[in-house]
Amino acid sequence: MRKILIIGIGAGDPDYMTVQAINALNRADVFFIPDKGDEKAGLRNQRLAICERYIKAKAPRFVTFRTPERAKDFTDYKANVADWHAAIEQSYKRMFAEELGEDQCGAFLVWGDPALYDSTLRIVENLLASGAIAFDYEIIPGISSIQALAAKHKISLNRIGESVLVTTGRKLAEKFPSDADSVVVLLDGDQTFASINDEDMEIYWGANIGAPEELLASGKLADVKDEIKALRVRLKRENGWVMDAYLLRKAKDG
Amino acid sequence: MRKILIIGIGAGDPDYMTVQAINALNRADVFFIPDKGDEKAGLRNQRLAICERYIKAKAPRFVTFRTPERAKDFTDYKANVADWHAAIEQSYKRMFAEELGEDQCGAFLVWGDPALYDSTLRIVENLLASGAIAFDYEIIPGISSIQALAAKHKISLNRIGESVLVTTGRKLAEKFPSDADSVVVLLDGDQTFASINDEDMEIYWGANIGAPEELLASGKLADVKDEIKALRVRLKRENGWVMDAYLLRKAKDG
Ligand SMILES: C[S@@+](CC[C@H](N)C(=O)[O-])C[C@H]1O[C@@H](n2cnc3c(N)ncnc32)[C@H](O)[C@@H]1O
Ligand SMILES: C[S@@+](CC[C@H](N)C(=O)[O-])C[C@H]1O[C@@H](n2cnc3c(N)ncnc32)[C@H](O)[C@@H]1O
Repeated sequence: MRKILIIGIGAGDPDYMTVQAINALNRADVFFIPDKGDEKAGLRNQRLAICERYIKAKAPRFVTFRTPERAKDFTDYKANVADWHAAIEQSYKRMFAEELGEDQCGAFLVWGDPALYDSTLRIVENLLASGAIAFDYEIIPGISSIQALAAKHKISLNRIGESVLVTTGRKLAEKFPSDADSVVVLLDGDQTFASINDEDMEIYWGANIGAPEELLASGKLADVKDEIKALRVRLKRENGWVMDAYLLRKAKDG
Repeated sequence: MRKILIIGIGAGDPDYMTVQAINALNRADVFFIPDKGDEKAGLRNQRLAICERYIKAKAPRFVTFRTPERAKDFTDYKANVADWHAAIEQSYKRMFAEELGEDQCGAFLVWGDPALYDSTLRIVENLLASGAIAFDYEIIPGISSIQALAAKHKISLNRIGESVLVTTGRKLAEKFPSDADSVVVLLDGDQTFASINDEDMEIYWGANIGAPEELLASGKLADVKDEIKALRVRLKRENGWVMDAYLLRKAKDG
């Protein structure tokens, strides 16, 4: 039976690799590496560097695949994503059939943790459910950008006895969540934090965490938001890409 | 300057250790190991087993400390926790002063990720802020029980474009959160899930995840809640301790 490994490689620092992930790398015959264009070349190189550093068992084969473009015009966000995933599913099907022997093992290297805002698992699951090709699969967790953010700022994600909401820039722009004491935001290309006006709000922000060009900033949101916007622009210009994440919570005693 | 490392060791499987955590283990001169009584002996042994397996650089010294009991009678939960933390802070202060040379490195091994529902970081921070003793500290993230839960069930924590709330059994018992699509619950000794009556609710549950005696269950909450309660009781009886975590979300199309 074909085997697919979905391996979390951590978010940015190759030292975030777990022993389980290193062992998984060494089981794979073929690596499926997405090619998302020039802008993300930095991420592709990081995946290859991890393979080079940690694979000792055999000389693996790399299969690069171009991920289809996501349609830019849409009314329904989730339908748009679903269509895009369906297109990627077709390239997975072709790769599994053509690049993987019946008893071979293929692997995806997923940035951070595969369970957080990553589509690989969902697409693999849909492909399996479609019945188009038989295989078995496993998930290997990885250090997510959320944990890297907290570690670098030396903060707990939760306050004592309180909850933490993990959400996206898109959802934050709709409304500020009322139920959570701490709010972690990923996937915010629009600097949604900058439009929040709350004198008590504090932010812990990080970009390209774990990478050599990592930037961190924190403080009262009102005081630091302009600085963060400027840092983000600078990092993108100097580095070609930027990924940032942040935690928001209201200052209070204790 | 004294150095303190707060090292996330992953939640249950020694293979969850990261390269960064292994390197940190090998930098420490002294390990501070909490002794929480017989019930948690399993956890203490797991910490020692990790040291034995991964430390190659030097023969480390282990300092075991009895964590003070948390007062059982209280009206204010957060004040109760704060008092308890203050008592632990005193034992940290004593240990850092007596067990650590001026240029030595001490380490705490934190279950899962230090940034999630763990007090070590907060107590260390308070001690430093008190000015009672000077030291520097670092946080090393680890695979949390939340990620282990998701990987074992082969699920994403979030649905497409949706948010995830991480909360405690105590808070869930107060009210079911309205803002989050998926809800992850830790620290639930009271099987709060069992008192939720919602025909559409699904649960993904795991206990002692990563350990040899790991148990998993999932399905419609109404169908599986009694089974989960029984599994939890059995695991506690057979194993001496049980730690469980779960994800709740309403079934829906797509
Ligand atoms: C598609 S999501 C994938 C998240 C990933 N699976 C994880 O566990 O971190 C990408 C988002 O993760 C966050 N992110 C990933 N890596 C990051 C890093 N090194 N520094 C800051 N944010 C990062 C950013 O918010 C980015 O928009
Ligand atoms: C004090 S909190 C610490 C959480 C830890 N820092 C983490 O990152 O997982 C303890 C709670 O974590 C969850 N937990 C920790 N390890 C677990 C495991 N191996 N299996 C299931 N739940 C676990 C349980 O909900 C438990 O009550």
